[in-house]
Amino acid sequence: MERKHIEQLLENVAAGKLKVKDAVSKLETLPFEDIGFASIDNHRNIRSGYPEVIFCQGKTCEQVAEIMLKLSKDNNNVMGTRADKQQYEAVKEVLPDAVYFKEARIILFSRNPRIKEKGYIAVVSAGTADIPVAEEAALTAEILGNTVERVYDVGVAGIHRLFAKLDLIRSANVVIVVAGMEGALASVVGGMVDRPVVAVPTSIGYGSNLGGLSALLSMLNSCANGVGVVNIDNGFGAGYLAAIINRQK
Amino acid sequence: MERKHIEQLLENVAAGKLKVKDAVSKLETLPFEDIGFASIDNHRNIRSGYPEVIFCQGKTCEQVAEIMLKLSKDNNNVMGTRADKQQYEAVKEVLPDAVYFKEARIILFSRNPRIKEKGYIAVVSAGTADIPVAEEAALTAEILGNTVERVYDVGVAGIHRLFAKLDLIRSANVVIVVAGMEGALASVVGGMVDRPVVAVPTSIGYGSNLGGLSALLSMLNSCANGVGVVNIDNGFGAGYLAAIINRQK
Amino acid sequence: MERKHIEQLLENVAAGKLKVKDAVSKLETLPFEDIGFASIDNHRNIRSGYPEVIFCQGKTCEQVAEIMLKLSKDNNNVMGTRADKQQYEAVKEVLPDAVYFKEARIILFSRNPRIKEKGYIAVVSAGTADIPVAEEAALTAEILGNTVERVYDVGVAGIHRLFAKLDLIRSANVVIVVAGMEGALASVVGGMVDRPVVAVPTSIGYGSNLGGLSALLSMLNSCANGVGVVNIDNGFGAGYLAAIINRQK
Amino acid sequence: MERKHIEQLLENVAAGKLKVKDAVSKLETLPFEDIGFASIDNHRNIRSGYPEVIFCQGKTCEQVAEIMLKLSKDNNNVMGTRADKQQYEAVKEVLPDAVYFKEARIILFSRNPRIKEKGYIAVVSAGTADIPVAEEAALTAEILGNTVERVYDVGVAGIHRLFAKLDLIRSANVVIVVAGMEGALASVVGGMVDRPVVAVPTSIGYGSNLGGLSALLSMLNSCANGVGVVNIDNGFGAGYLAAIINRQK
Amino acid sequence: MERKHIEQLLENVAAGKLKVKDAVSKLETLPFEDIGFASIDNHRNIRSGYPEVIFCQGKTCEQVAEIMLKLSKDNNNVMGTRADKQQYEAVKEVLPDAVYFKEARIILFSRNPRIKEKGYIAVVSAGTADIPVAEEAALTAEILGNTVERVYDVGVAGIHRLFAKLDLIRSANVVIVVAGMEGALASVVGGMVDRPVVAVPTSIGYGSNLGGLSALLSMLNSCANGVGVVNIDNGFGAGYLAAIINRQK
Amino acid sequence: MERKHIEQLLENVAAGKLKVKDAVSKLETLPFEDIGFASIDNHRNIRSGYPEVIFCQGKTCEQVAEIMLKLSKDNNNVMGTRADKQQYEAVKEVLPDAVYFKEARIILFSRNPRIKEKGYIAVVSAGTADIPVAEEAALTAEILGNTVERVYDVGVAGIHRLFAKLDLIRSANVVIVVAGMEGALASVVGGMVDRPVVAVPTSIGYGSNLGGLSALLSMLNSCANGVGVVNIDNGFGAGYLAAIINRQK
Amino acid sequence: MERKHIEQLLENVAAGKLKVKDAVSKLETLPFEDIGFASIDNHRNIRSGYPEVIFCQGKTCEQVAEIMLKLSKDNNNVMGTRADKQQYEAVKEVLPDAVYFKEARIILFSRNPRIKEKGYIAVVSAGTADIPVAEEAALTAEILGNTVERVYDVGVAGIHRLFAKLDLIRSANVVIVVAGMEGALASVVGGMVDRPVVAVPTSIGYGSNLGGLSALLSMLNSCANGVGVVNIDNGFGAGYLAAIINRQK
Amino acid sequence: MERKHIEQLLENVAAGKLKVKDAVSKLETLPFEDIGFASIDNHRNIRSGYPEVIFCQGKTCEQVAEIMLKLSKDNNNVMGTRADKQQYEAVKEVLPDAVYFKEARIILFSRNPRIKEKGYIAVVSAGTADIPVAEEAALTAEILGNTVERVYDVGVAGIHRLFAKLDLIRSANVVIVVAGMEGALASVVGGMVDRPVVAVPTSIGYGSNLGGLSALLSMLNSCANGVGVVNIDNGFGAGYLAAIINRQK
Repeated sequence: MERKHIEQLLENVAAGKLKVKDAVSKLETLPFEDIGFASIDNHRNIRSGYPEVIFCQGKTCEQVAEIMLKLSKDNNNVMGTRADKQQYEAVKEVLPDAVYFKEARIILFSRNPRIKEKGYIAVVSAGTADIPVAEEAALTAEILGNTVERVYDVGVAGIHRLFAKLDLIRSANVVIVVAGMEGALASVVGGMVDRPVVAVPTSIGYGSNLGGLSALLSMLNSCANGVGVVNIDNGFGAGYLAAIINRQK
Repeated sequence: MERKHIEQLLENVAAGKLKVKDAVSKLETLPFEDIGFASIDNHRNIRSGYPEVIFCQGKTCEQVAEIMLKLSKDNNNVMGTRADKQQYEAVKEVLPDAVYFKEARIILFSRNPRIKEKGYIAVVSAGTADIPVAEEAALTAEILGNTVERVYDVGVAGIHRLFAKLDLIRSANVVIVVAGMEGALASVVGGMVDRPVVAVPTSIGYGSNLGGLSALLSMLNSCANGVGVVNIDNGFGAGYLAAIINRQK
Repeated sequence: MERKHIEQLLENVAAGKLKVKDAVSKLETLPFEDIGFASIDNHRNIRSGYPEVIFCQGKTCEQVAEIMLKLSKDNNNVMGTRADKQQYEAVKEVLPDAVYFKEARIILFSRNPRIKEKGYIAVVSAGTADIPVAEEAALTAEILGNTVERVYDVGVAGIHRLFAKLDLIRSANVVIVVAGMEGALASVVGGMVDRPVVAVPTSIGYGSNLGGLSALLSMLNSCANGVGVVNIDNGFGAGYLAAIINRQK
Repeated sequence: MERKHIEQLLENVAAGKLKVKDAVSKLETLPFEDIGFASIDNHRNIRSGYPEVIFCQGKTCEQVAEIMLKLSKDNNNVMGTRADKQQYEAVKEVLPDAVYFKEARIILFSRNPRIKEKGYIAVVSAGTADIPVAEEAALTAEILGNTVERVYDVGVAGIHRLFAKLDLIRSANVVIVVAGMEGALASVVGGMVDRPVVAVPTSIGYGSNLGGLSALLSMLNSCANGVGVVNIDNGFGAGYLAAIINRQK
Repeated sequence: MERKHIEQLLENVAAGKLKVKDAVSKLETLPFEDIGFASIDNHRNIRSGYPEVIFCQGKTCEQVAEIMLKLSKDNNNVMGTRADKQQYEAVKEVLPDAVYFKEARIILFSRNPRIKEKGYIAVVSAGTADIPVAEEAALTAEILGNTVERVYDVGVAGIHRLFAKLDLIRSANVVIVVAGMEGALASVVGGMVDRPVVAVPTSIGYGSNLGGLSALLSMLNSCANGVGVVNIDNGFGAGYLAAIINRQK
Repeated sequence: MERKHIEQLLENVAAGKLKVKDAVSKLETLPFEDIGFASIDNHRNIRSGYPEVIFCQGKTCEQVAEIMLKLSKDNNNVMGTRADKQQYEAVKEVLPDAVYFKEARIILFSRNPRIKEKGYIAVVSAGTADIPVAEEAALTAEILGNTVERVYDVGVAGIHRLFAKLDLIRSANVVIVVAGMEGALASVVGGMVDRPVVAVPTSIGYGSNLGGLSALLSMLNSCANGVGVVNIDNGFGAGYLAAIINRQK
Repeated sequence: MERKHIEQLLENVAAGKLKVKDAVSKLETLPFEDIGFASIDNHRNIRSGYPEVIFCQGKTCEQVAEIMLKLSKDNNNVMGTRADKQQYEAVKEVLPDAVYFKEARIILFSRNPRIKEKGYIAVVSAGTADIPVAEEAALTAEILGNTVERVYDVGVAGIHRLFAKLDLIRSANVVIVVAGMEGALASVVGGMVDRPVVAVPTSIGYGSNLGGLSALLSMLNSCANGVGVVNIDNGFGAGYLAAIINRQK
Repeated sequence: MERKHIEQLLENVAAGKLKVKDAVSKLETLPFEDIGFASIDNHRNIRSGYPEVIFCQGKTCEQVAEIMLKLSKDNNNVMGTRADKQQYEAVKEVLPDAVYFKEARIILFSRNPRIKEKGYIAVVSAGTADIPVAEEAALTAEILGNTVERVYDVGVAGIHRLFAKLDLIRSANVVIVVAGMEGALASVVGGMVDRPVVAVPTSIGYGSNLGGLSALLSMLNSCANGVGVVNIDNGFGAGYLAAIINRQK
């Protein structure tokens, strides 16, 4: 029940068309969603021009295609994450304008790309194997309207490569660090920049990396300040968090 | 070796007071930190007016007092985190102007408080027992120059209390969510605001809360986007991360 | 040895057809299950009209078909859980009346459906991916004689959708909450209803969800009271527990 | 804002004392809890006559006393869980009628005990060391208006003791099973009764009991159906869940 | 209800003194413990002359004393494990003949020591710090009527000490191996003897020993056959298991 | 250096053909294996008539066949555990007399079966899915010369089935208990017999069974005494341990 | 910017060709890599003649071939670890001289093999299944210029086989111990040699071996001194560490 | 049986005083320790001049004093690790020359210090709180005859401090890296030196550092090669391993 409905109700009370008792009942029983919709909706996507997002992994090709088609009617921008080639093929049949970013595993349907934010987000990754997650983060940030600088393959085992890119990293508004194995890159970068760092542990490694827990724990226990951590392999989440940090108020 | 020292060296070379060979030696052998100072120093604290920070837990009273005294000479602002009353007493003897925030367990020595950022950071906490961590986060953010709005005791078991404060939370630039037990508050808040959320799991709970791992895992697996997580009970880290997110560029 | 057999034995003793000594032997040596049947049998299924249940996962098609056929002779209702299509095809050949519920992965053979309990059980689930587990819970509850209201896809990331269904949820006799990832939905629902909540963590998620442990720990540490937890992905167990809670005494 | 306040507001609108515009503002801006009170309050305690509950562990004596005093003004019944003797002494000074149950570690202030539900709840525990948790469960259930039958020290290592009490257990409306170590009692009881079983793992044991995780995992993986599990040592939670299961609709 | 009671009942039926209907009722309702007592009692202690055992840890001095006193009336031998000095003092006041074994932390009251089994049990331990657990095992085995050979401080870091005692170990009927840290001793001994090995991991160590889990996992994964494992620090359990293995049939 | 070589050496010393000094050197430097062979060999298999054992899982068909063939030359009995059908086919080509036990996944080549021990070993298992592990244990015990009584599908959820077989179980010399899920069967059986119990956790279950850790922890924390535990799914190890317990001295 | 570039710059300043101000700017802004290259490069591979190494697992055949080809241009020796047959086939097409070591899963391209170090490294492994990891370690050490002695299949279950090779092991400069299951071999070897031991846990085993964690924890908690541990299954890392220990200074 | 006993035996054989047959028996049955002593003793301490070492933690003052006194009679050097002040006081009473290193928690009794090895070992530590473990490592290496360079408080959060000491670190023969929290220092140092790195995780940190497991896992998963890891807080072990790496052959 939006404002104008409440006004109407009160007008009717004031005009004697509606008894106080009945008005109380209406107010008491009005569906939560109606009040709620106005005051607590989380439609930040709509308000901010952010796309609707579908987590494709584990869904059938048909489901992905159907959901993207449906969402594309009410949204200018729709993205599917963790999508494979088959899912994209299915989407393409119903949304021929959808494009697929293979490395980032993202399907994008975009009628009206978001205007770019000022400055840029740096996406820094440790090893070659971390690139899919890094790309998911980078592309997500781009789709959400940010310029992105990619600084890949600068793990701490060859730290001079990282330092060669230090100025680029330090000039970013937000830095996303993507690393598997021991995840030390997050601490090293965190110690050298004075901007927020979003750390993404990856499941890259083997044995006692415990599917990414090793990197995750490293990042949570970072001796550097200013580091916020997202779930293992969650490139999308990192790109999203970086984007809302970078969004102009 | 700061800029003016390098200038002086080069002036001497230009003036013939210093031989090229000797200048090369000086440049080559100058301690890394000196060259480094220009290009890779992490003295973001100094540049940003942020205080130096001491993690007091596990240090003796004497150690804390000595370090704070020493740092107070070169820094306008020094803070000690996880400090107990005894440590404060020791600090007070050498730095009579130091103040102690009991609940947040912070000792602060401040000659020149940082100018306030615009807007505010909301610190939202679930239960009474989470307040010390929330206070550590809130006070840290304040010391780093932010206005803070505290929204305490709004756990999801009585979610109407949270909704009563929704406008206040949604108008913040950054939201810190502090919760123990199952840590569900981070997801609920994350789903309702469109600003960055810094989630702090606490060790509050018992049994299968596993010393805070339950809340930590919840927050990392949050179904809401835009949530970055810090270590268990790391109120300082959350306040710091929120502060650099909120800092005007 | 059921009651009537014991009666017959005693009649024979009373009639002098059976010697006391022989009767004692018969009573002493009768298989434990027979005495046991009266005093400690766990055939609550039979007494309550509940079906016999087979956990099909990991069994061959032949085994499932054979067991269902055998049980169908002595039981009016038999259900197979975690059954796949192939297993159903095998069952169908020997029990043509068996039906298959694909999403819930349940095979049902029912000669005499149980009479409905009063009121209803609400099955609330967080995300699309949780629906198979939710359906397993819902269908189990229905097979055990309950009316079920399904409230799906109301995860806390979009909490207004949950609130829109609040009345429906709050009027249930028992509420089953199915959620993966961080499992926060159980706490939110638990805080809003005053009926027993059966929480089912699912393995949906990735990385630090640890195959469902994240949601499980959340639910066990719920700050809301009145929540009982079952094993990860155990939709059947939740439906069963809800059913015996809802059963009229 | 309770019903009578909304009525008053509408009366004023009807009487022309309050303009529609102003009434809308009032309704729009009234604290969420007031609107919320009608539609989403979780005051099931008030509605059901259940007491307010304070988790005392980790609170100072002063805090416990202050909170109990405050709550006692608006509530007929207030209970404090995990309370020690010192906390009780502090409460007693401000609430002389409060009583203390040492073994269950519960402080109770009760002006108007809840009317008894029909039937009873059985609390079954494995070892002597599990009794404090069992007592917390039993007393909680009693305070919430239930008759309780205690069946203690019937662990599966001496299973004939359990069977001696089988009739008593099987006649309960709800059965609470409290066990540490390997927690096998929950499965054994669960296999023998056809009523809901609330299982409480305890931290009793040592070594690989992992602080209660061993019993917790046992109970979650129970081969018996109809078992819902609460957190380790959570006697209060078990008593509460059993109580709302047993409450007449 | 023992045999003679059933005979009496049937005699009464045969004699017409008891109606069939009443006899059925009596048989149906006879307490489980009565039938059960005969067929499923676990009073192996009584039958085997084994003592009753009390786990003293976590009990008050009064409780320990009271239980020992009570048990001493019906049992010739009573032992308390994990008992401290204070508990013993309390026991001694009520049972002056009770003796205390400090290192093994065992209180023993013995009126009629069990006759010795043939052969002996070897108790082999790795380090000095493992001796309390080893002593608990050794003394338990002795109390249960076995000769014990102690082979202490023969950890694999100085494996020649172990080999020096090899004949002694290999001639035992059962070998108990007690080791903390990495627990390798169990595998080494297991590979060299052809008698059953009972392995007891201890919590000795630090850091990644995880409170004994390191040794426990080692022993469970032993590449040697014929090794059965008990809980961490469970010297009593090892002694008990070894004793029933060694008992003559 | 076997006995005859040492004899020869000493003969030479006695005959003056070898100087004492040279003999000392030879003895001092003789390879460890030679002396060692006599004093520390672990050829308990050979001495006891036990077969050589090959763990086939993860080996190629060729490897399994080759090893079995080679061992069959020096050993009357050879068994392969965790063997699949393909591996057996490969073995059969080189050892036509080898037989395959499908459920137990054991290949056996036996020229001279071991003489039977007296009495029998009972193998008790909880669910249908535990049978392969139970069979591996049972068949292993049989191959090692024991009579085995199988008591399958007597899980605690239907405890009357267990009781019906109680006499059979209690008359065994050793009892092997095989159970997955919560593993409660080990405690229940352990509490009812006064013979050694070898407990085998299985990986049967899902979710929080953690691949068998749930059952493993249950068994290690058993409240019943006299229980020794082997690794998850280690049917062979249980059969072997039971066999050496049961072997007549 | 190497030394000669800095000299040139200073010469220009001295000669008045370059203003001090401009020189300062150049020094301040010179890319980090240039200074860094001289002072902190980690090109130990180049300096030591060690090959470049590619971790092939998870890379496509094309990626592996491309990277090896590229590296082969600037490096005399390139090795690929964890490579499968298909990857090797792809490499062979572009680098016909590349060879493949199947068991060690290593592809090697070597134009100029490293000169041999003095002495040798012993690689000791426990079981047949550990050989691939042992071979990876052995071959890595050989490629890095070491003589290697392989001592395989000497697990502690048959410890006499280990002792037979003791002299060979004790004469090595460095000992690599490779073991899965309980990993006891590392402690036994560590206790018998006085040279550095590099311990490699393997994932061989099942159930509670937890994918190699059991062996890893054993090795970290070794009661023997002088043992350094690498990641589970990390044969390459062990070979590399052993090689740099053995390298002549 | 030492050499002279074997000589005597052979003399007797040569002299005809002992029959060959009897001599064989004696040799066959001579206690393992005697032969073993020569061929497999692990008295590397004695041979290398290394001290005997006592792990003092958990021992009483009396035990520590008694053991040190006893060992001091046969050893020139004895050290006690993890010793507290009280233990030292007790030792001092019986060994007045013993000295105590407070920070390293080491008691040293040294009659004849070991001759220094060439070159030095660098001990690099991350934070102030890691110093006790670093000192334990450094002092251990010194006692074992090495020169040590300490490079403390150079954690990666302020990486320029580390770089300022790079030359010192890179010139060491072995580098010990001591770090808690996320342990990233090991990877960073490992990537910059071409000497063996011994990594020591410490338990410094809180929350998800899991008592040092976070740093341990980081170090095991290091992306840098040439890193061997010891147990959490095991400064002694690191110093020992570094010492035997650095020992001249």
